[in-house]
Amino acid sequence: MTGKEKAALESQTKEIKPKIGAFLAVMSGKGGVGKSSVTALLAAGLQRKGFKVGILDADITGPSIPRIMGVSGRITLENGKMVPPLSAGGIRVISANLLLDREDYALVWRGPMISNAIRQFWENTFWGKLDYLLLDLPPGTSDAPLTIMQMLPDTDVLIVTSPQVLASMIVRKAINMARRVGARVMGVVENMGTAVCPRCGETFELFRGEGTESILRDLGLPLLGKIPYDQRISDLCDIGAIETYESEAVETMVASILAVSGHES
Amino acid sequence: MTGKEKAALESQTKEIKPKIGAFLAVMSGKGGVGKSSVTALLAAGLQRKGFKVGILDADITGPSIPRIMGVSGRITLENGKMVPPLSAGGIRVISANLLLDREDYALVWRGPMISNAIRQFWENTFWGKLDYLLLDLPPGTSDAPLTIMQMLPDTDVLIVTSPQVLASMIVRKAINMARRVGARVMGVVENMGTAVCPRCGETFELFRGEGTESILRDLGLPLLGKIPYDQRISDLCDIGAIETYESEAVETMVASILAVSGHES
Repeated sequence: MTGKEKAALESQTKEIKPKIGAFLAVMSGKGGVGKSSVTALLAAGLQRKGFKVGILDADITGPSIPRIMGVSGRITLENGKMVPPLSAGGIRVISANLLLDREDYALVWRGPMISNAIRQFWENTFWGKLDYLLLDLPPGTSDAPLTIMQMLPDTDVLIVTSPQVLASMIVRKAINMARRVGARVMGVVENMGTAVCPRCGETFELFRGEGTESILRDLGLPLLGKIPYDQRISDLCDIGAIETYESEAVETMVASILAVSGHES
Repeated sequence: MTGKEKAALESQTKEIKPKIGAFLAVMSGKGGVGKSSVTALLAAGLQRKGFKVGILDADITGPSIPRIMGVSGRITLENGKMVPPLSAGGIRVISANLLLDREDYALVWRGPMISNAIRQFWENTFWGKLDYLLLDLPPGTSDAPLTIMQMLPDTDVLIVTSPQVLASMIVRKAINMARRVGARVMGVVENMGTAVCPRCGETFELFRGEGTESILRDLGLPLLGKIPYDQRISDLCDIGAIETYESEAVETMVASILAVSGHES
């Protein structure tokens, strides 16, 4: 960043921040464990409780949020600011895919471009008043999470993992990164640990292992929810209606996160 | 890259390339669909057929290969070159995690550092004679795949997807990227489309959808394999023994890839 860019970022941050109650970055390090699903389910759950919620999709080269939430409206400009389109449930969404003509167009961008895009989403979006801004981070510990954590040093980080030991090894990297740069890791949501067989109706372990427990124990973090694999979530993602999904597991997760983030539910 | 770096890269490439029969980049764009598992299963399958195989793990911030293949030996130096440790089955593996004291240590690196690491793995590794060098790419369409495709413009790209439409939307980005930079996309392997319930033994659709078919049809690509979800793969990954997994599905995939890559099996 040049000095001028830094000054612009700081002035914008000073202007926007007071209007946003809390920042929550959803991170995993590992791909495919369900960061975007958990982000969308959490956003919808918070919205149902009366909070105003926005999502900044910081996964620039693999953005899933618009598709799973059915947001297809383009970003419009008003007084030079980007206005986030709304999901069916009223959640404000900013994502690289809302700037593309085709959702399968690839942004072949090196790291500095990724960081610039995220900074512009932050600087140039008219979020209005929000109780929660959720930031959906891509896999890895490179440009996107680093930019977010440097830009918003007081963001809370919510970790998503599966119980597989392999996944948890990569997830530990993400937690170690967040702690090294001074972000607060709130806790862990386990996704896809169990599944219900659509044939016999019995519950079984899907991505089994001691991964989640070892993270909680070794890194001293609370478990904030367990979302079982459910074919309905996968199907609702495909038709852009994940917001309509409700379950006891989701409600429990939302309540735990509200409790830890210090908000009454 | 400076002119000097570019010259070093070119001279190294000229020296190593003739010793390596074929390059095969395993890519998805989407995280968590099983790129690393497919890479390892393919490597083991090729090795069983008598080919000499190496894996360059290009997922610098989320490297899974050493863990799932049980490679824990450190990279050693010989005449200034890195010597890849061997898996139990004799596959040569280079990965960022083999340079770390702890496998859960996070490399918090911006894009240019990621590219440098990949170039150094290529330039400074003593691979010896190989029939196949597999390159396991991270999710996204940013630094790592771009560096690989610019460094090895004649690499073949193997795409891994799940049938979920959401996954296939991101996977299409990867295919579009590969084609835009001139790489040859060989075909598609579908992972985790079906699963067998450990309770009742019945097969059911896990990540269901029309994603794979739509990719094959719209982008004119052949299907090179279908690997069902199997708890045993997940368990073998966790104990570092994925190489010992054999199945009809894996053998069929290996044979199809050999046929397409022009090698007799």
